Amino acid sequence: MSTNDQELRHAIIREALHALAELPYEKTPPHAGVVIHRIVKNMVGNIDPYLGLKITYNRRALDLYPEMKETVARSSDRFETAVRLAIAGNNIDFGIRSNSDHIDLRDVIDETLGKPLTINHLKQFAESLEHADMILYIADNAGEIVFDRVLVEEIPDYRKRVMFAVKGAPILNDATMQDAEEAGLTGIVRVIDNGSDAPGTIAELCSESFIEELDRADLIISKGQANYETLSDVPRNVFFLLKAKCPVIAGHLGVQVGDLVLESLVQKRPQIITPSC
Amino acid sequence: MSTNDQELRHAIIREALHALAELPYEKTPPHAGVVIHRIVKNMVGNIDPYLGLKITYNRRALDLYPEMKETVARSSDRFETAVRLAIAGNNIDFGIRSNSDHIDLRDVIDETLGKPLTINHLKQFAESLEHADMILYIADNAGEIVFDRVLVEEIPDYRKRVMFAVKGAPILNDATMQDAEEAGLTGIVRVIDNGSDAPGTIAELCSESFIEELDRADLIISKGQANYETLSDVPRNVFFLLKAKCPVIAGHLGVQVGDLVLESLVQKRPQIITPSC
Repeated sequence: MSTNDQELRHAIIREALHALAELPYEKTPPHAGVVIHRIVKNMVGNIDPYLGLKITYNRRALDLYPEMKETVARSSDRFETAVRLAIAGNNIDFGIRSNSDHIDLRDVIDETLGKPLTINHLKQFAESLEHADMILYIADNAGEIVFDRVLVEEIPDYRKRVMFAVKGAPILNDATMQDAEEAGLTGIVRVIDNGSDAPGTIAELCSESFIEELDRADLIISKGQANYETLSDVPRNVFFLLKAKCPVIAGHLGVQVGDLVLESLVQKRPQIITPSC
Repeated sequence: MSTNDQELRHAIIREALHALAELPYEKTPPHAGVVIHRIVKNMVGNIDPYLGLKITYNRRALDLYPEMKETVARSSDRFETAVRLAIAGNNIDFGIRSNSDHIDLRDVIDETLGKPLTINHLKQFAESLEHADMILYIADNAGEIVFDRVLVEEIPDYRKRVMFAVKGAPILNDATMQDAEEAGLTGIVRVIDNGSDAPGTIAELCSESFIEELDRADLIISKGQANYETLSDVPRNVFFLLKAKCPVIAGHLGVQVGDLVLESLVQKRPQIITPSC
């Protein structure tokens, strides 16, 4: 989607294959993703091929924001509905979809509200939120962050307690500071960027100041697959909100592709202590 | 399937990625396949990882040979039934399947006999066979060649007119001279090998003597996808018998994945004159 120049495409593929051949294979898919995306951006000379998509889906999600607020207000369990909406937003993922895909956000919302969470640590999530002084909300995609905003606004004292983290530079359609501004997040909570242009949260590519906030947080809310891939071995109090989109992630979680997940890592895997940050 | 040594696997992947980066991208998938398979064979030190599978499926197909002959004898159109059986045999493809897959050959036969040919140039095929003095039958897989034998035996004067071609060295589970012997082909027609260890028929990797036979043939019967990929631009009288197994090939043929195909190339695309051999 960055270029139609067939010769340039071939050159990019060759460069990417050589780079893949030199990767450390014990690392995660986002470690490979960042390398390939840097090659594409450099060779095409466009650091933000997804810019248009990000603006479009921020706007489309904002159009639905009043409806989402009303859905939450009218629901029997406001918090659960907001959690489901945040997971619904995780469908806006152009790392998985083709850029020509049209996502009907209303369909996505209806589908997600009507479907059970296959892993459902909602109670632990609510309890943990009650006791946390500092909550770090690690976002995934543009557009999706409007859905995240609905959840953030259901967290008591969110203005004081929630810090919202976006990417430090464009990668896929992941949310950056510009998206946080467009989505209205910067007006309601402190928003920081992670200093990185990688998918997910690769500690060694993040800024020192972001890692400090990560270390300080009592509770981490992690959105999407790439953050799961890069944070699932971190021995911290992390709640993962995501839709399982590929067989490998689904298999690791023990769910099916398409399933909705709210998983508490510490609760489920207290034995894992392989710190990556 | 060639090795469980994780370090060796990684080394092979790295080598293969570097090699893929250097390929001429205007060539066919078999051009890439032969390069990768040579790397695996060399690095593992096993030139025939599919040997066991080939022996197994030759034997299983031979067990069904008497039944297949009876099915042909009892059918209302012997020739069509034999053609369908030859296409049924094309399911024995471990380039597509995993080596742990079990293929029930009886199921495959039943399914193929009960399904229409999506592209069906049977009449042209029968006519062309009538007038050909030299018929070159280019085989695909071990096991499958027992099914091919059933079709060969339905061609009038097959002992004089049909020449049967196998691979010159092991590649995937493709039939070699050893398989032709096991399947009983060598006893009924002249069998030659193409001198190559590539999937399909890559002219520049084939022996001179094979290319001479290819040039001499009045009619070429080509089995399977890899031969389609490498022979579909050859301006010769070729009939392709195959099951479409991947979206790219299916799309090129204008059929769905899983569809059965008997296509006459010259009839359908007389305008194509890009000789590759």
